Amino acid sequence: MTNTILGNAIVGQSGGPTAAINATLAGVIRGMLKHKESTLYGMRNGIDGVLSDRLIDLSATFTDEAGNIREDDLTLLAHTPAAALGSCRHKLPKTDDPKGEETYAKIIEIFKKYDIRTFFYIGGNDSMDTVAKLSVYTEKVGYPMTLIGVPKTIDNDLMGTDHTPGFGSAAKFVATVTREIIFDCAVYTVPAVTIVEIMGRDAGWLTAASAIGRAVDGIAPDYVYLPEVDFSMEGFMSDVRAALQKHPNVVIAISEGIHLADGTPVGASSAAGLDAFGHVQLGGAGKTLECAVREQIGCKVRSIELNLPQRCGAHLLSATDIEESLRTGEGAVAAAAQGVSGEMMTIDRVSSEPYRTEIGHKSVAAIANQVRYVDAAYINEEGNNVTDACCRYLAPIIEGEIALPYAGGVPKFYRFD
Amino acid sequence: MTNTILGNAIVGQSGGPTAAINATLAGVIRGMLKHKESTLYGMRNGIDGVLSDRLIDLSATFTDEAGNIREDDLTLLAHTPAAALGSCRHKLPKTDDPKGEETYAKIIEIFKKYDIRTFFYIGGNDSMDTVAKLSVYTEKVGYPMTLIGVPKTIDNDLMGTDHTPGFGSAAKFVATVTREIIFDCAVYTVPAVTIVEIMGRDAGWLTAASAIGRAVDGIAPDYVYLPEVDFSMEGFMSDVRAALQKHPNVVIAISEGIHLADGTPVGASSAAGLDAFGHVQLGGAGKTLECAVREQIGCKVRSIELNLPQRCGAHLLSATDIEESLRTGEGAVAAAAQGVSGEMMTIDRVSSEPYRTEIGHKSVAAIANQVRYVDAAYINEEGNNVTDACCRYLAPIIEGEIALPYAGGVPKFYRFD
Repeated sequence: MTNTILGNAIVGQSGGPTAAINATLAGVIRGMLKHKESTLYGMRNGIDGVLSDRLIDLSATFTDEAGNIREDDLTLLAHTPAAALGSCRHKLPKTDDPKGEETYAKIIEIFKKYDIRTFFYIGGNDSMDTVAKLSVYTEKVGYPMTLIGVPKTIDNDLMGTDHTPGFGSAAKFVATVTREIIFDCAVYTVPAVTIVEIMGRDAGWLTAASAIGRAVDGIAPDYVYLPEVDFSMEGFMSDVRAALQKHPNVVIAISEGIHLADGTPVGASSAAGLDAFGHVQLGGAGKTLECAVREQIGCKVRSIELNLPQRCGAHLLSATDIEESLRTGEGAVAAAAQGVSGEMMTIDRVSSEPYRTEIGHKSVAAIANQVRYVDAAYINEEGNNVTDACCRYLAPIIEGEIALPYAGGVPKFYRFD
Repeated sequence: MTNTILGNAIVGQSGGPTAAINATLAGVIRGMLKHKESTLYGMRNGIDGVLSDRLIDLSATFTDEAGNIREDDLTLLAHTPAAALGSCRHKLPKTDDPKGEETYAKIIEIFKKYDIRTFFYIGGNDSMDTVAKLSVYTEKVGYPMTLIGVPKTIDNDLMGTDHTPGFGSAAKFVATVTREIIFDCAVYTVPAVTIVEIMGRDAGWLTAASAIGRAVDGIAPDYVYLPEVDFSMEGFMSDVRAALQKHPNVVIAISEGIHLADGTPVGASSAAGLDAFGHVQLGGAGKTLECAVREQIGCKVRSIELNLPQRCGAHLLSATDIEESLRTGEGAVAAAAQGVSGEMMTIDRVSSEPYRTEIGHKSVAAIANQVRYVDAAYINEEGNNVTDACCRYLAPIIEGEIALPYAGGVPKFYRFD
């Protein structure tokens, strides 16, 4: 199993947490433990941990005194939400910016200190940007290094992959909780509108997942509004009135990022700011529509923001997602061992029925800083729902359940000290 | 098994849905199916279904052609969230109010039409009021009837019972999701405050459940604010500052019903109104505190309203809760068959270690229209957290998990046509 290309390796997690990012980490650890000559380090808080020399020896952490893998810990890690190593939102400077020289020099200094020759970065779009820049910089300064991006994002908005690790579990949570909300709302006979606000700044994949139940037994929101379609308040009100004619309990799913034709977010909050990557910090589209329905229709109305639980709901994992996340991590090590570098791991759908995927990889440069939107074929003509084709694409990704270990009535999770 | 006291029976669900109210319904159905001479009817939308003659023959629905119980359907019903028969928020008029005579006369007319002699009402405080009034009225007019209240409420605010069916599953959801949020918030090193707003208008039981993890492995919110303690913004800010000195990721649990010493709700919304029972419709305490922290401390801050999913999260049931909810329903039938009337079923804790409960009953008149607050011994001296004794009381109620049947990646639930 020896591989001289790998040398020592380092792995980090970056960007927003998901319920599956630790499964991918567990996959990288499992993959690296096969290469006993290599030590795998973990960055605490992503690239910040490299810059501040806060590394953890993962090879030692997950090996017992007899040299065997600590399987129980690795399994526990794979089912733990958030990012066990910690995360960051640190965008590296441009590689040709003289002001950034100090940052890159520090990173190379740490790589040299630990003789690190392989770099795994698990994250979303912005993390792929880090991999792309480090690929350029290490080549520029002649530091031989293998760099692999490993995707994760609940937003499913990365190009080049059928879907992203982490999306399936979030989508399963959204589909299940939306179903439960529909059951809850159905108990009264008084006309009422319930608006469910789902994460998704630019891409509506996760909101689309609220409709998966339609393909199962017809239970789904009345309407689904995605950021891919310009939002019209008039069209929305007309839709709501039409639904109220059919039944008293109207449930509507919206993306947090829905916006008017001129780009104005529906839920622009007064406290809105920009994050380090220039994204508007959204929130409140549901509340905006709730107030509008109360004012213009006057019926009972509530909005529900699914909020953080949709991305950290480890108690409701998609078995498909966790299995693919593990495989993606292991695949990253296998690819690195073959000398692949500057690439992002991908999940390639080989067939839908039966569902089968393979782990592949594509150039990070072609993927970073792009957004994969919901396909036009997945949105209906009226722009107020998803198509059956969309449900068919999404369905297998949320399949399968995982029975977590519980203690004292709550799930057991893994923590580094 | 014949029992002449029962006659035909009727069961209804009232008040806010829970994830366990259908388990109690399944218990009543199972109990009544033992009495083959009796037909069990279900009211659609609680007492409204009696007033509008919308009844469903539950005995027939859950018996197959050969006369056997449809066990699969009954099991599915027991794990279905919300209220399968539908609910209502209908407060009966006072029994001595002449204006209410028409309502009561209509109810008695329907009881006579179906020869109904036993009445089960599954609900919270307000539903016990319905049982108490019908007990008085049927006695007044000499209509022989056995009336039993069967408790349910996620708020756990009913007197006379150790805890209420439905509370355990909501508490398990709150404890688990709070834990996952704490993991999610721990990934960044930037100081941040996260405020989790939990249901509980008058009583803080469900918010207290956010702290259960403390007894398991120390993972719990930094502070827990209940409506039982007058809220002070100065004390809150001082607590938050102290927590930020200790670690960057502060997580705080609050009840939606927290209020100032003069009774003003912290989250009084501009759209606030009163429901049929005179309750203020709350919401927004978390948002109020989020804005206050942003203004006064200036660090990153977010608020998360757990909202409906905490009461309808059937994908995360407490096995203890579901088992007790079933037993409470079956116990209600057994009590009625013994001639008990005008009583509410109770869960009596016989011992805590090992945890063991028995199903009992107490006079509805002594229970209705009262609120059981969190015991003083369960709140710390500073009034900003719960005690270990509180965690010990709560812990067994959330024990045990239930593996729901899934189809297409989402849970299967029961629906009447």
